[in-house]
Amino acid sequence: MQVAVLAHESFPDRAKTAVGLLRYGDHEVRAVIDRARAGGRVADVLPDVQDAPIVASMADVPAVDALVVGISPIGGGFDESWRPDVRAALERGCDVVAGLHDFLEDDPEFVRLAEEHDAELQDLRKPPDDLTVAEGTAGEVDATVVTTVGTDCSTGKMTASFEIRDAARERGLDAAVVPTGQTGVAITGWGIAVDRVIADYAAGAVERLVETPEEQDLLVVEGQGALAHPAYSGVTTSILHGSAPDALVLCHNAGQEVIHGYESFAIPPLDEYVDVYERLAAPVSEATVDAGMLNTSALDADDAAAAVETYREALGVPATDPVRDGVPDEVLDAIL
Amino acid sequence: MQVAVLAHESFPDRAKTAVGLLRYGDHEVRAVIDRARAGGRVADVLPDVQDAPIVASMADVPAVDALVVGISPIGGGFDESWRPDVRAALERGCDVVAGLHDFLEDDPEFVRLAEEHDAELQDLRKPPDDLTVAEGTAGEVDATVVTTVGTDCSTGKMTASFEIRDAARERGLDAAVVPTGQTGVAITGWGIAVDRVIADYAAGAVERLVETPEEQDLLVVEGQGALAHPAYSGVTTSILHGSAPDALVLCHNAGQEVIHGYESFAIPPLDEYVDVYERLAAPVSEATVDAGMLNTSALDADDAAAAVETYREALGVPATDPVRDGVPDEVLDAIL
Repeated sequence: MQVAVLAHESFPDRAKTAVGLLRYGDHEVRAVIDRARAGGRVADVLPDVQDAPIVASMADVPAVDALVVGISPIGGGFDESWRPDVRAALERGCDVVAGLHDFLEDDPEFVRLAEEHDAELQDLRKPPDDLTVAEGTAGEVDATVVTTVGTDCSTGKMTASFEIRDAARERGLDAAVVPTGQTGVAITGWGIAVDRVIADYAAGAVERLVETPEEQDLLVVEGQGALAHPAYSGVTTSILHGSAPDALVLCHNAGQEVIHGYESFAIPPLDEYVDVYERLAAPVSEATVDAGMLNTSALDADDAAAAVETYREALGVPATDPVRDGVPDEVLDAIL
Repeated sequence: MQVAVLAHESFPDRAKTAVGLLRYGDHEVRAVIDRARAGGRVADVLPDVQDAPIVASMADVPAVDALVVGISPIGGGFDESWRPDVRAALERGCDVVAGLHDFLEDDPEFVRLAEEHDAELQDLRKPPDDLTVAEGTAGEVDATVVTTVGTDCSTGKMTASFEIRDAARERGLDAAVVPTGQTGVAITGWGIAVDRVIADYAAGAVERLVETPEEQDLLVVEGQGALAHPAYSGVTTSILHGSAPDALVLCHNAGQEVIHGYESFAIPPLDEYVDVYERLAAPVSEATVDAGMLNTSALDADDAAAAVETYREALGVPATDPVRDGVPDEVLDAIL
């Protein structure tokens, strides 16, 4: 599929979905729409992902099948400054895909244009309406199931999931990411934003996702939130039990000591944190934390290497910064 | 408020809400509607709750302010055999209150009748539409906060919560139950069915509830699900962290060894279970399991006493069967 990605005034640093699509997606990105960087190219700012021109509006985009909204602003609302581009895409008959809290389907103009031009509106954050409670069957899937978990939100769980998938594919395995958040869903084109599911069905949604892919050797379930997070720990627990993993990978930001946005709550010591994850997993599956992923983007190369080494020692398992150093054999071996 | 309680063919054993209203509610129940027991009295089958006549239909009910649906069938659907009574109540101008998955508000006939007769439809399971993520502030409330938790669903958490409240009131304390399920909400007339809230907001809903009552000495938060439950552990975690309790009370059914309906999943050993609850609570609040509640309804008096003693020893804290023996001073002292 050929797509354009909308990322006005946000590319690349505040356009996580756009960057994820460029780095990990199977779609061909034919243009990034960002009026603040129009005229440049993706390669100018992100040398290690697929390249594409950056344009000012939908009018400058070549033929594509879909426009993907590649920004998730705080609160998840639709920004009215994006309306002309969404309108233009629909008028060209392109589908429009978004992972916002505000659903495209609830916008009368978009609904009308989509009907007129035979285009589809896809709200990735909208859960299926036939979800139900978990049956406790996720542990029966044939694939090895690895779930990424974190010490906080935004510790690189999605990135770690895709990097593990890519390392496994390089080894010749059939591997897939099981996406549980709107960015992962946007990148892969399937999945459920588990945080939007009603609480009773959250584990059931994850179970359904894990049971969906066929004939895979490895499923990497994208975790959400963190077990010590005052607001999101319920979602984390639902994914931990709903995915019934064989192994866990703990993701952490180097040097972070308190929960982001909840600074009166300390991140527990790593050995304690690992123990709580494993003890909580145990009644449902025998998963242990078999590898660690550290985000060292704030450090220079020497400090990063030292931080990974310290992290490895704290966890007692192989560790890496998957963005800086990839997923080495010893890490992949540990979780397979 | 004066109410009638609908419990067709279900009173008392399959009408948890009806029994809860009779036992713990502040409303005067003027009639129970159950066509299978019409002509009898509540006292014939439940000697220890408020008494009321059992009648066949709304036509036999004296003046009341509201009709409360006192049954929650599996699946939570509305049974069409209840329609004539709901219709009759609305035609008399009575409000109708229900905690079903099927909302009264979505039924065109009920909406029309409610409008015509100036009556109100109250769907207790419908969450408020302005919920948001937890801020991590529940720990700042002045009241002592005690959260009931369980080894499984249906281990008596709601009953334990009300019995603790009543024991505290007998001691002269201002005490309230914080209801998190539709039965507790129906009994008290406030609260949120947390299992129906989207997963991201579940802890936030609990936080809002805990911060609602004013000038209470003791808040007893009704727990839901269980931490080792393959389907509902996410809700349990959201309540554990969202309520930021000072103490936990562990509820268990005497002799139960596996999760009900999920028989391949064992209930963890009690000391391990206590430890996981406490270790998971720790990053948010310093709650420990300070008392145990055991449901011994399947045992005779001697076996029940022995089971409570064994439970007390396993937990290492005071324990009781609150239905059989009430909440003795040593239990109340332990959690205050």
